[in-house]
Amino acid sequence: MAPLKLGMVGGGQGAFIGGVHRMAARLDGRFDLVAGAFASSPERAHASADALGVRSDRSYADYREMAVAEAARSDGIDAVSIVTPNHLHGPIAEAFLAQDISVICDKPMTATREQADSLVAAAKASKGHFFLTHNYTGYPMIRQARQMVRDGALGDIRIVEANYLQDWLTEAAGDDNKQAAWRSDPKQSGGGAIADIGTHAYNLACFVAGSRALSLSATLLSHVEGRTVDDDAQIAVQFEGGARGRIWASQVAVGNENNLTLAIYGSKGALRWAQETPNVLWFSKLGDVSQMLTRGSGALHPVAADVTRLPPGHPEGYIEAFATIYREAADVMSGIALDTTIGVEQGLDGVRFVTACQHSSRNAAAWIDL
Amino acid sequence: MAPLKLGMVGGGQGAFIGGVHRMAARLDGRFDLVAGAFASSPERAHASADALGVRSDRSYADYREMAVAEAARSDGIDAVSIVTPNHLHGPIAEAFLAQDISVICDKPMTATREQADSLVAAAKASKGHFFLTHNYTGYPMIRQARQMVRDGALGDIRIVEANYLQDWLTEAAGDDNKQAAWRSDPKQSGGGAIADIGTHAYNLACFVAGSRALSLSATLLSHVEGRTVDDDAQIAVQFEGGARGRIWASQVAVGNENNLTLAIYGSKGALRWAQETPNVLWFSKLGDVSQMLTRGSGALHPVAADVTRLPPGHPEGYIEAFATIYREAADVMSGIALDTTIGVEQGLDGVRFVTACQHSSRNAAAWIDL
Amino acid sequence: MAPLKLGMVGGGQGAFIGGVHRMAARLDGRFDLVAGAFASSPERAHASADALGVRSDRSYADYREMAVAEAARSDGIDAVSIVTPNHLHGPIAEAFLAQDISVICDKPMTATREQADSLVAAAKASKGHFFLTHNYTGYPMIRQARQMVRDGALGDIRIVEANYLQDWLTEAAGDDNKQAAWRSDPKQSGGGAIADIGTHAYNLACFVAGSRALSLSATLLSHVEGRTVDDDAQIAVQFEGGARGRIWASQVAVGNENNLTLAIYGSKGALRWAQETPNVLWFSKLGDVSQMLTRGSGALHPVAADVTRLPPGHPEGYIEAFATIYREAADVMSGIALDTTIGVEQGLDGVRFVTACQHSSRNAAAWIDL
Amino acid sequence: MAPLKLGMVGGGQGAFIGGVHRMAARLDGRFDLVAGAFASSPERAHASADALGVRSDRSYADYREMAVAEAARSDGIDAVSIVTPNHLHGPIAEAFLAQDISVICDKPMTATREQADSLVAAAKASKGHFFLTHNYTGYPMIRQARQMVRDGALGDIRIVEANYLQDWLTEAAGDDNKQAAWRSDPKQSGGGAIADIGTHAYNLACFVAGSRALSLSATLLSHVEGRTVDDDAQIAVQFEGGARGRIWASQVAVGNENNLTLAIYGSKGALRWAQETPNVLWFSKLGDVSQMLTRGSGALHPVAADVTRLPPGHPEGYIEAFATIYREAADVMSGIALDTTIGVEQGLDGVRFVTACQHSSRNAAAWIDL
Repeated sequence: MAPLKLGMVGGGQGAFIGGVHRMAARLDGRFDLVAGAFASSPERAHASADALGVRSDRSYADYREMAVAEAARSDGIDAVSIVTPNHLHGPIAEAFLAQDISVICDKPMTATREQADSLVAAAKASKGHFFLTHNYTGYPMIRQARQMVRDGALGDIRIVEANYLQDWLTEAAGDDNKQAAWRSDPKQSGGGAIADIGTHAYNLACFVAGSRALSLSATLLSHVEGRTVDDDAQIAVQFEGGARGRIWASQVAVGNENNLTLAIYGSKGALRWAQETPNVLWFSKLGDVSQMLTRGSGALHPVAADVTRLPPGHPEGYIEAFATIYREAADVMSGIALDTTIGVEQGLDGVRFVTACQHSSRNAAAWIDL
Repeated sequence: MAPLKLGMVGGGQGAFIGGVHRMAARLDGRFDLVAGAFASSPERAHASADALGVRSDRSYADYREMAVAEAARSDGIDAVSIVTPNHLHGPIAEAFLAQDISVICDKPMTATREQADSLVAAAKASKGHFFLTHNYTGYPMIRQARQMVRDGALGDIRIVEANYLQDWLTEAAGDDNKQAAWRSDPKQSGGGAIADIGTHAYNLACFVAGSRALSLSATLLSHVEGRTVDDDAQIAVQFEGGARGRIWASQVAVGNENNLTLAIYGSKGALRWAQETPNVLWFSKLGDVSQMLTRGSGALHPVAADVTRLPPGHPEGYIEAFATIYREAADVMSGIALDTTIGVEQGLDGVRFVTACQHSSRNAAAWIDL
Repeated sequence: MAPLKLGMVGGGQGAFIGGVHRMAARLDGRFDLVAGAFASSPERAHASADALGVRSDRSYADYREMAVAEAARSDGIDAVSIVTPNHLHGPIAEAFLAQDISVICDKPMTATREQADSLVAAAKASKGHFFLTHNYTGYPMIRQARQMVRDGALGDIRIVEANYLQDWLTEAAGDDNKQAAWRSDPKQSGGGAIADIGTHAYNLACFVAGSRALSLSATLLSHVEGRTVDDDAQIAVQFEGGARGRIWASQVAVGNENNLTLAIYGSKGALRWAQETPNVLWFSKLGDVSQMLTRGSGALHPVAADVTRLPPGHPEGYIEAFATIYREAADVMSGIALDTTIGVEQGLDGVRFVTACQHSSRNAAAWIDL
Repeated sequence: MAPLKLGMVGGGQGAFIGGVHRMAARLDGRFDLVAGAFASSPERAHASADALGVRSDRSYADYREMAVAEAARSDGIDAVSIVTPNHLHGPIAEAFLAQDISVICDKPMTATREQADSLVAAAKASKGHFFLTHNYTGYPMIRQARQMVRDGALGDIRIVEANYLQDWLTEAAGDDNKQAAWRSDPKQSGGGAIADIGTHAYNLACFVAGSRALSLSATLLSHVEGRTVDDDAQIAVQFEGGARGRIWASQVAVGNENNLTLAIYGSKGALRWAQETPNVLWFSKLGDVSQMLTRGSGALHPVAADVTRLPPGHPEGYIEAFATIYREAADVMSGIALDTTIGVEQGLDGVRFVTACQHSSRNAAAWIDL
């Protein structure tokens, strides 16, 4: 099977997430990176293209030009990865979808609700597909967890707890911290911790629990002098189907690197998972001893096995889970799979979540319906 | 040093917490159990006394009679342990305090705010001391944590998270479950999970953070058909000094046995502790690697060493921490120490906390000042 | 049930293990400490007796005098705890056994094979009982493990691995370190790490596996200049029944406090346990997911429940396990139980083990039959 | 930088390690797979080539033909990956080295000492490079550990313990288990657990400790009826420089998936690492609290940072470590780096180790000099 042709917008040298997307695209050999608008400055864009082995005639400084030019080529890209600050996701995605080029977009889908609605419409009108890289859903043990919930192993879901804790913004970031700079600008990010990682936690909770928020009460705080976005967000959530939950996203929780955890409690059992040890899933069945399920084990459901690359005990990590999102995108684009788990619907729900949190927090943590 | 003479009210055969108090009282040889009203039925009371080696002339069926009789003896008890259902704590304590006999009382202090106020007044009027066995404060690593907060190792406290998760009430308890029966009756318990374990979590958070709740927003739920008290309580808290926090107490969290955890995040560092592995305290200093502090290590503060009985690697557990509360009570009663950390003030604050949670929850999680 | 009357030899102020024995004896209320020869100097002996609440007429400076005097009293001691340096265990035990007073002796049983043989004979001739405090066998999860092996849950035992790692002798101990001083003198200790902790590891392996060493090959090393006993011992073992194993005892393994671990692998399953987290036992059944068994859980065998004092999640520790040895001694002495698991047979096997290791190590790790 | 052109011998469909090598080669975009002799049967070879996107004119059924043909092409491969059973490593490597094509070879280097000597000579005579994929050395925390040993953080190295435990051969493998089949045939594998995983453990110990075995005493066992190679190997090792150690490799240790652990104890500190949680390295400094070093942290040495692809808390795994070996091979082939850490010298040492273990075990665990 020949690799699909991939372009990228954003992700020039020094960017963290661009490199991740490239490794993820490459791991399974399903994509070749052949075009890009890696930066808005022509010089940096072309230098990055050169370093990445992208030919100069397919290196662009303007994503609009890129979308048109690639669509016009007989060997034009099949899909584009968007790895820019959040406020550009919508416009860029729409530019490529308008050319029927598929989009693989980093999260959150957009920086505002208006952008989200517009993008949903654009995606429906396009022959291209839209994929949102909620990469944590690519972990095999998360697939296993989701299946166990579906299969009723937990009984009725009562409590959903998803915490995403980091500490890299405990103090004011230096001016040279590119990652921190745009995230701290509400116009570019659409929000602080809530947009950057709260969306991940919320999406993961919904993905595994098979549910969505009905209403929420949020407290968004900023613990650092001069910071204009939230760095700590505590959200009480009522889910469809009656479960209650808590989403906590913090970027000032000292000692936490990228500590995303999920716990789901039902009337008959519970599941617990932590992203920093992703190859393990804890299952407790009421009245029985706790079990440690491990990736690759023969005891797992085929949906977990399908996204597993290595035998048990050979740890898979973040890139592998991310690569699974890319592989599934390739499967959908190639007609091997019918649908993806993370598309515009989930993206819109995420933006709704962020917006509702901000609205609630501005109103003394009032309960807001989504 | 001759042991102090101890009586007990409640704690007859089959009761869990009575046995714990007796082991705790005995471990350091500071108390001798010499009297008791172990049950309200004379038969069961005397059978328990006999089994426990308490002489028949000091076995009582009525605590009021016991208080008067013991006060009249030249060899009467110095202190009484109260290990009854919650609604009896106040009246019993007052009966002994009225005789200037010291009281060592299980938590929560009382089942209602009225009882609490009355008891506070009684304690002030008595020559006896009042001790509340918030036993988790007796763990050496909790003492270490409290001291590190005091010493500024964490900087300004920003976030306090205390979760106390159990699963033994996931389903409706059988009629023969004595532990569950009175806890499920709001008149006897004063509340469900919030009174039984929420008070522990709140007290521990306050003890270590050196703070108290200013206001809170609580959601108390009951997940089991027919249950008349809460079995899951989520509380957002604003602390004195500006910290925000969350207390979560649940007795329906499958797979959790007695999983009390505490995390405190400050501007410079963080501490994390879990009751089920109590000999370890995690300390993360901003910008440095995380450290595993261990009980008994030479690196700890004297306040931790003072309540440590064994060298590092020789695990101490629940009884040892509980025994420390008893030892400190003995020290205060003997004039060796001036004051205890857990008395009527903390007891009153705990009752206020429970009452405020119930009030908030009945009012759609409205913020309530304490 | 009235407490048994206990004496103690050794264990004066400042001694670690004496205090442990006293707490262990006291925890369940089965023994009262009423006599002692706490030190060989009369002054220190009587000062310790005073501090411990032992009446002066039952405080002795000479254990021989104590044995005779106590035997002559109508209220004389029922048992004596021996907590002296190793080379005195044998003579002291024999002095009390000769008076038909039961003995509860710290390990190793004796410092030499000759002492061991003599003590075995003395124990057989006495009406008193002899108990060896291999305290780690008192942990509930160790009882569970032993029962699972007996019940065939592991199939045929193939591999037994017991490691006991500490680091407190990584450097030469200061002259003021009383614990280190006698242990470092081969005449008093009978050996270094091999005698002090290797015997524990070996005993634990035998206790759980239900087997004994047939032959072994040992390398005993001393890593510190001037040290005259081993501080690191690696022993390959062939067990009765065909299992192979390794015992590793080290007191120079930096970062290990009291890290005794046991792993047993059979043809159908495996068990793993670590003393520093003693409330957990890992069970892996071939072809199935790994299970975390926890103390107090309803899934455990009655032999584990019988030595459990607290519900799940309320950690028990070192003292509780030690107290179980004392409780079982009381049960045997009171006729409630017929026999103990750790007596002179096991003590003799432990001394044989030490002697064989030393012999093997002196002969280039030659295989030695026990 | 244009990717290097890579060929592969072995690794056809269904082979585990071939797929790993391909992902590892691809992850950083430094190699393109363009040729292969993926199987010895022409049909399977070409089917695999087709599935892998290798053009039919560069798909071979005979590695000798491949070596000659590729060397003759102007666009011939720069390197070949060898992922066949062990007994073919040597002949295949020599065929390509004879054409000055670089070799990236799976471990152990060869199945016999004779093959190893021959290959060493061939490597020296070739303009191609020889790389041995001891992939566990590619983990960032292993690089950190090695550097800390070099920098003296542990003082003098006293004890080295490397255990590699699996359980997939606990029972006789079915006839359809391709992985097990050739490993169980001593002619193809050169040994059982000792060759398959013992070499990894030994190499890792040497890599980090900066040392090699001087002599060893080994016991190789086979626990399964009818198995002709060892499935459990316990080896006592004396290292250059005076350290003592133990290597334990087992494929019958139930409950262990791929549990490779390393512990190194020195006079001043210790390091501990486990492959299944590879992003963490424990460091204990004598007299200080234990530290948890984490991959990606600013506290690490540049040698660790250089092989790190993701920020802290974003777990890297087995493929990433393997890819580092490929990247370093690319760096050496491209002249960016001068030398590799794992070449024929280490390969020869590994074969010597296996041979010595087998010799010792046949002679009752006699000590054998390497």
